[in-house]
Amino acid sequence: MVVRAAVAGASGYAGGEVLRLLVGHPEVEIGAVTGNSNAGQLLGALQPHLLPLAGRVLEPTTAEVLAGHDVVFLALPHGQSAAVAAQLGDEALIVDMGADFRLADAADWEKFYGSPHAGTWPYGLPELPGARAALAGAKRIAVPGCYPTAVSLALFPAYAAGLVEPEAVITAASGTSGAGKAAKPHLLGSEVMGSMSPYGVGGGHRHTPEMIQNLSAAAGRRVSVSFTPTLAPMPRGILATCSAKAGPGVTAAELRAAYEKAYADEPFVHLLPEGQWPATAAVHGSNAVQIQIAYDESTHRLIAISAIDNLTKGTAGGAVQSMNIALGLPESTGLSTIGVAP
Amino acid sequence: MVVRAAVAGASGYAGGEVLRLLVGHPEVEIGAVTGNSNAGQLLGALQPHLLPLAGRVLEPTTAEVLAGHDVVFLALPHGQSAAVAAQLGDEALIVDMGADFRLADAADWEKFYGSPHAGTWPYGLPELPGARAALAGAKRIAVPGCYPTAVSLALFPAYAAGLVEPEAVITAASGTSGAGKAAKPHLLGSEVMGSMSPYGVGGGHRHTPEMIQNLSAAAGRRVSVSFTPTLAPMPRGILATCSAKAGPGVTAAELRAAYEKAYADEPFVHLLPEGQWPATAAVHGSNAVQIQIAYDESTHRLIAISAIDNLTKGTAGGAVQSMNIALGLPESTGLSTIGVAP
Amino acid sequence: MVVRAAVAGASGYAGGEVLRLLVGHPEVEIGAVTGNSNAGQLLGALQPHLLPLAGRVLEPTTAEVLAGHDVVFLALPHGQSAAVAAQLGDEALIVDMGADFRLADAADWEKFYGSPHAGTWPYGLPELPGARAALAGAKRIAVPGCYPTAVSLALFPAYAAGLVEPEAVITAASGTSGAGKAAKPHLLGSEVMGSMSPYGVGGGHRHTPEMIQNLSAAAGRRVSVSFTPTLAPMPRGILATCSAKAGPGVTAAELRAAYEKAYADEPFVHLLPEGQWPATAAVHGSNAVQIQIAYDESTHRLIAISAIDNLTKGTAGGAVQSMNIALGLPESTGLSTIGVAP
Amino acid sequence: MVVRAAVAGASGYAGGEVLRLLVGHPEVEIGAVTGNSNAGQLLGALQPHLLPLAGRVLEPTTAEVLAGHDVVFLALPHGQSAAVAAQLGDEALIVDMGADFRLADAADWEKFYGSPHAGTWPYGLPELPGARAALAGAKRIAVPGCYPTAVSLALFPAYAAGLVEPEAVITAASGTSGAGKAAKPHLLGSEVMGSMSPYGVGGGHRHTPEMIQNLSAAAGRRVSVSFTPTLAPMPRGILATCSAKAGPGVTAAELRAAYEKAYADEPFVHLLPEGQWPATAAVHGSNAVQIQIAYDESTHRLIAISAIDNLTKGTAGGAVQSMNIALGLPESTGLSTIGVAP
Repeated sequence: MVVRAAVAGASGYAGGEVLRLLVGHPEVEIGAVTGNSNAGQLLGALQPHLLPLAGRVLEPTTAEVLAGHDVVFLALPHGQSAAVAAQLGDEALIVDMGADFRLADAADWEKFYGSPHAGTWPYGLPELPGARAALAGAKRIAVPGCYPTAVSLALFPAYAAGLVEPEAVITAASGTSGAGKAAKPHLLGSEVMGSMSPYGVGGGHRHTPEMIQNLSAAAGRRVSVSFTPTLAPMPRGILATCSAKAGPGVTAAELRAAYEKAYADEPFVHLLPEGQWPATAAVHGSNAVQIQIAYDESTHRLIAISAIDNLTKGTAGGAVQSMNIALGLPESTGLSTIGVAP
Repeated sequence: MVVRAAVAGASGYAGGEVLRLLVGHPEVEIGAVTGNSNAGQLLGALQPHLLPLAGRVLEPTTAEVLAGHDVVFLALPHGQSAAVAAQLGDEALIVDMGADFRLADAADWEKFYGSPHAGTWPYGLPELPGARAALAGAKRIAVPGCYPTAVSLALFPAYAAGLVEPEAVITAASGTSGAGKAAKPHLLGSEVMGSMSPYGVGGGHRHTPEMIQNLSAAAGRRVSVSFTPTLAPMPRGILATCSAKAGPGVTAAELRAAYEKAYADEPFVHLLPEGQWPATAAVHGSNAVQIQIAYDESTHRLIAISAIDNLTKGTAGGAVQSMNIALGLPESTGLSTIGVAP
Repeated sequence: MVVRAAVAGASGYAGGEVLRLLVGHPEVEIGAVTGNSNAGQLLGALQPHLLPLAGRVLEPTTAEVLAGHDVVFLALPHGQSAAVAAQLGDEALIVDMGADFRLADAADWEKFYGSPHAGTWPYGLPELPGARAALAGAKRIAVPGCYPTAVSLALFPAYAAGLVEPEAVITAASGTSGAGKAAKPHLLGSEVMGSMSPYGVGGGHRHTPEMIQNLSAAAGRRVSVSFTPTLAPMPRGILATCSAKAGPGVTAAELRAAYEKAYADEPFVHLLPEGQWPATAAVHGSNAVQIQIAYDESTHRLIAISAIDNLTKGTAGGAVQSMNIALGLPESTGLSTIGVAP
Repeated sequence: MVVRAAVAGASGYAGGEVLRLLVGHPEVEIGAVTGNSNAGQLLGALQPHLLPLAGRVLEPTTAEVLAGHDVVFLALPHGQSAAVAAQLGDEALIVDMGADFRLADAADWEKFYGSPHAGTWPYGLPELPGARAALAGAKRIAVPGCYPTAVSLALFPAYAAGLVEPEAVITAASGTSGAGKAAKPHLLGSEVMGSMSPYGVGGGHRHTPEMIQNLSAAAGRRVSVSFTPTLAPMPRGILATCSAKAGPGVTAAELRAAYEKAYADEPFVHLLPEGQWPATAAVHGSNAVQIQIAYDESTHRLIAISAIDNLTKGTAGGAVQSMNIALGLPESTGLSTIGVAP
């Protein structure tokens, strides 16, 4: 099987990462790579780590250029995917790494993004209950946000098993690549090295409704989420520290059993042995997820912590994993669970 | 006034930081600097940033060496301060930067430290209600832990004003100097750069009872604390993200008013203008504290975030601030509120 | 004595650093702080580490605003200082932290900067032979570039003593703040963390003629310089590795003696004890310079290595040091030799 | 073809990296993984990024354990490989990632390592003239040092073409993993973050004779090397800045032609397009080498700069590349030229 794939938005971090993975994917042949402001430039100048593609020239992001591929990955700014998708017809599988088609609730979308809701596509987090069935054979995939990936995997087993109360309190630290490649003063190396700082505090981060959607679906009732993202002095990685009150009488053993059951057969999610804690370095460049939980008896709370690479499992790796499912390929094809450490 | 000060444990990070501050303190003359395994070595080899003290030789940590000073700073491993203090008599002011005398509850001490309780000294966090009165003229000071400093300052105004429920959920990110200078594999630069990881999860961190003590005192009732510390890839700084449910009917305006009132006259604590968030880089090497709060109406929670330098306000700066109060000096003498940034 | 100082270009890194130092300078009162694109904004939003100045509002950089000060620090883009200086008259001391007045040779200026030469001002590197005499009472000071500061101090004693051949080969690593605060993609934290890269290779860096000027003056003959700057993943600091062939028959002892003599009485330059090597962390935020040399007998070369903080001794600290000399103040006033480490 | 490979010293950085690569090598099956102080522990606890091997238990490093493999990788402290190799017999291919068998000159070995010379094995830098022929079918391979890999590839084309003088001046910056995983205070994250520092200055670094050996062989005459290594605040990567005087009349075009010719068909060495410079981030985790050169006409010097990943091309990737040649596999099998960036 040869899958011909195009990548729109190839000069950014998400686009670069999906290309990094696709070069190593044994069933994929890379077709068009496109940009807008960078069209006409060599990929080698924009993404110097992608040596095998250094001689490729970025084409403009148009329907003509993207036509004729089996899969089209969209790594575009929010709000642009719908128009591109509409022009591409139904033949190609379209994998959107932006936010446009993640939320089922139009009101949520409009509140957090301030534009009309474009629709809802099958959600590309295969580990969630029912997700694989929705992805198999799909022609449209909405890749989850990086924070919702880390948070949903850390908490959904407890919610699905009915073991925790419907209020989650979450703090996550993200590497700077999560903020993209557009040059902004507060993202300069001089500013971020040696510094931790929060942003989007108080319920305003756009990934919050996506977490609520996932956890509520798992719980079968409305879950509220208090989410605080922080920027950490590292290029990649998310460490999500998630907490929820355990239900009456719930024990540490029940909590652990729920996670063991949820992840027993998952190829990418690794519940660590007791006593070992996740570290983002261990999943650097990998599609793996490290998870560990603790039950704090003094507060009767579950603390569930996950580490992912925000660009791999949190974006492009999750996209390829879902593509594999949609195309009927083995789910792990072209994806590694080995991090580049130290 | 000339205050003659000795520093015991001068080869570590806390000892080095207190020396850095004391060199610039206009009323202090530095007397003995001591170490144990490093006795006989030049300070210039162990703390090369302390250029004016480069020629000082470390003496052994004995009562003889420490005698005859007006102030003795102890930067010793937990459990060693009581014996040294007992030998020094009542003349000198002893400022303990270790944990030995922070906790009032002997059972808490024994549970978290596994040794007999040595006692309780006046607690060196001047911003807490009543603290300055207890420190004035004191001959013994227990310097708070770095995390309890950051967390207590972030949350006590809300508790003191009775505006939040008695369960706090806290995640804090600390620079690696908080783990000390003893060489351990997981603290190697190769391991920590590019990585975020948690430790002491689930209620086990020794600073937890100290936070509970401070917040309960402010609230006038028992506050429970779920505390998760994480290690961040930076040498200094703590960012504490603290959350508690607002009380019934409490508004954002009431919360902000409580913080404005608490910190209106504090020389080191700076409640940021609305819209601006703390960053550890801004307080690098400074005794300042940056605080910002948000009220999340969707979860009815207060999010209070503080940034400190763990070695300055979190350890040695707090120690000097409390020494100033004990000696009747202006509280800010020798302390800066300017960070070294970028 | 009260010196009233203005800072033009206060929103950038050089401007922020000179303000950091001036706040702590006992003889200085800070007057106008100006910017252009940022005029009207609060300094607290632009330089959040300068807590005591947080409420200051940036004024526009005009002659009216800058008039009436004893000292005016210019932290402006290259080419703008001459026009501002011309408008300020002769009363005020003008300290230019840009490049405009550093080079004596108009042809060098035009070759490297591509604009007409504005002139030459007394050069603010007091440690160079004759520099203090030229600075005393001066009304105009050209602050050296950061790399020329590090390189000139590493090599001039050997050249002044006639001990090395007139070809220097230099590689220097700089923290990212040397590249300024303007947001450019290659300076993003995501790009610089974990990466070392060179730039301006092959003789093209604008600081090269300034190094040649200083070393040639010390040697009394034309010195050639091969200079390669590299960008290091840290916010501050320069480590300059400088090498030159020792003259015929020159010994390690003669080399060391030359450095000991040159720096015996210098308050800021510290020739380290043999066996200890400079580290940029040791001079973080300090005006100190660490220097060490080695004689490689197998190649008969001198290796001289210096560490400075590019923003302090390399820019704003050097500026304040020269201001002190010009005004007749003790040279070290307001300047520290203690680094903020770890 | 199934190649059964053992790794001795699997708990360190070199051992971990060779395992990372071997897991993805399509012709290799991983046999014994051994350690000494860590024998009996789970690999998952020591190398948490190697998820597929997490359940493996470290065995002791003995001849019995290492017997019966097609290839044995030795990642042992210097001086231990000879004894292990002697016990293993001639059947297996032994790939030594230590220094023991790199140097041809026994006097050099004894001078720099202070122990008797163990011998000389075929040298695993395939890009050097004649190296592939020596490696084909070899049963013993000495993997080059990380610095000699970076430096030799940066300079040998100029020496082989007779275009530069026989004195090279080199400064290299290395990530901290080059210093190994043994916990030492100066390698703590608190010490290395934010700091650049040199070590082994003045001809003393053990990799110097290896560079001289390679460059002299290329030049056909004795080349002298002045080498200064520096420690950079990043976990991986080497940036080598190498300089040599161009020969009389040599032009920039001749230099470039020599590099283009040398690397035209090399799968891993990439001479960048003019105007683009190497960055270690671009080769993070990759076996690729980025090289760029400049001719500085004012000093008539060649500046040749290379970037490698010290653990991949500089150690374990180079080892696998040479193994492939020795076994008759395609040279690039299991090796990537794509870096993990940003």
